[in-house]
Amino acid sequence: MRIVGIRRDGGAQVAALSEDGAQVTVVAALEDFWADAAGHLSREPGGETLPAADVEFVPPVLPGARVVCIGLNYLKHVAEGSYAGEGVPPYPTLFARWTQSLTVGGAEVPVPSDEDGLDWEGEVMAYVGSTLVDATPDEALAAVVGYSTFNDLTSRRAQKLTSQWILGKNGDRSGPLGPIVPAAEVGDLRDGLRVQTRVNGETVQDGSTDEMVYTVGDTLALISRTFTLRPGDLLATGTPSGVGYGRTPPWLLQPGDVVEVEVERLGLLTNTVVGNDARTA
Amino acid sequence: MRIVGIRRDGGAQVAALSEDGAQVTVVAALEDFWADAAGHLSREPGGETLPAADVEFVPPVLPGARVVCIGLNYLKHVAEGSYAGEGVPPYPTLFARWTQSLTVGGAEVPVPSDEDGLDWEGEVMAYVGSTLVDATPDEALAAVVGYSTFNDLTSRRAQKLTSQWILGKNGDRSGPLGPIVPAAEVGDLRDGLRVQTRVNGETVQDGSTDEMVYTVGDTLALISRTFTLRPGDLLATGTPSGVGYGRTPPWLLQPGDVVEVEVERLGLLTNTVVGNDARTA
Repeated sequence: MRIVGIRRDGGAQVAALSEDGAQVTVVAALEDFWADAAGHLSREPGGETLPAADVEFVPPVLPGARVVCIGLNYLKHVAEGSYAGEGVPPYPTLFARWTQSLTVGGAEVPVPSDEDGLDWEGEVMAYVGSTLVDATPDEALAAVVGYSTFNDLTSRRAQKLTSQWILGKNGDRSGPLGPIVPAAEVGDLRDGLRVQTRVNGETVQDGSTDEMVYTVGDTLALISRTFTLRPGDLLATGTPSGVGYGRTPPWLLQPGDVVEVEVERLGLLTNTVVGNDARTA
Repeated sequence: MRIVGIRRDGGAQVAALSEDGAQVTVVAALEDFWADAAGHLSREPGGETLPAADVEFVPPVLPGARVVCIGLNYLKHVAEGSYAGEGVPPYPTLFARWTQSLTVGGAEVPVPSDEDGLDWEGEVMAYVGSTLVDATPDEALAAVVGYSTFNDLTSRRAQKLTSQWILGKNGDRSGPLGPIVPAAEVGDLRDGLRVQTRVNGETVQDGSTDEMVYTVGDTLALISRTFTLRPGDLLATGTPSGVGYGRTPPWLLQPGDVVEVEVERLGLLTNTVVGNDARTA
């Protein structure tokens, strides 16, 4: 099953995409879906079926959800970036996205005014389905109801202006998400799902989720000791090596470039980069 | 005029608090308010009037709003913290809160499991009323429709686990907000509004908004070059010197402590600290 968000007159809904992608079948209103995500994912969707061409796709994410992101989670990515001299951090390095930065496959992503381009970061996103307070890693992992592809497209100049990264991590439409695949169909990320990123067809990242330093369960458990995770919260699990700014010379996405993230069992996420004028349009 | 949020059966609304605080008069539904905040603030509220004792107060903030916070913005606060050796940063140091961390005056704020207490940070919050893309500082300042008191209650251990601060800045109910006062009644923060924080009646911070390094206009203009600010987004303007963790010995809020933030023209914000068991209740 692949779960998507759609926007309709009555508000946002969650729907299941048909195998060929030609149709969607409504599962529930967005808020109702997250009130019992595990339940909805365990049943065949029973709502209206519509042609995919007739609906607007949006992330199946609550506006108030927290998008927690792990910054340095694959050993070889730590080694290629500005933090290489400091080695692997003793805890997961967590930064924030707001849901307003999220979008879907097919969306055009603008390069902001002051940037030389956008950097790619192919990732796996985990979706929390229940409330977690001071959870153990096992409890936290059991609360994950699904996973999707994610591209953490980054404005490197803005990210590096000061010690804190969040400005460069929240550009307009800079966080495309693929459809959610239920956790039961994905299995354990520690088994190693291949994560690849391609730019105009050329492979630039090729890693595996078994390279992660901090697991989803460990990270959610740690977070839950400071704040209470709620159904609909998201965890971006970090990117493998091969990002653009660490290369010699640096390589950043320019308007017209096509960037793809493909993760085993989660599918393919494709976006096109456009100029800053798309922000004002 | 003092603007508050209230939660009612039909959803969240924005209301005006009477001078004596005994009544609220409904202004608009939350989403309708932010669709034309400047317009609503320029008119007398025309909705139903209710006893304050009968309503539940909530932040008058859209769930999907971005709460951008300046980390190091008062010179003497830079000098007292972990970043003292690096001097004043060349750009505003921006970190993120999610709206789920926000609450109101009177709320009980829990100390998370792994913390020795909570630190106080009395601040002024600015509220954006219109869309800003690549704005000038003057345009950005003109988009601010109001200000409120804010206490950026901080879990210092979580904040300092890694290079990125956001975990320690998003504890449950750790961001109390006072009522919004329209910008026209507040005037220019550069004129110097006194910002005081008290713990159990003892003054611990006593600064003035004219000490800010980065103004609201400059900071919003900078942000708007990377992402588009929308009506309802918030900017926390940083805290003066006098926080607890920089003291010898450190002083952190414990369950039972009462913390007050008082800002000239914006009023008084009072909260009580409670234990971690309040998170599971």
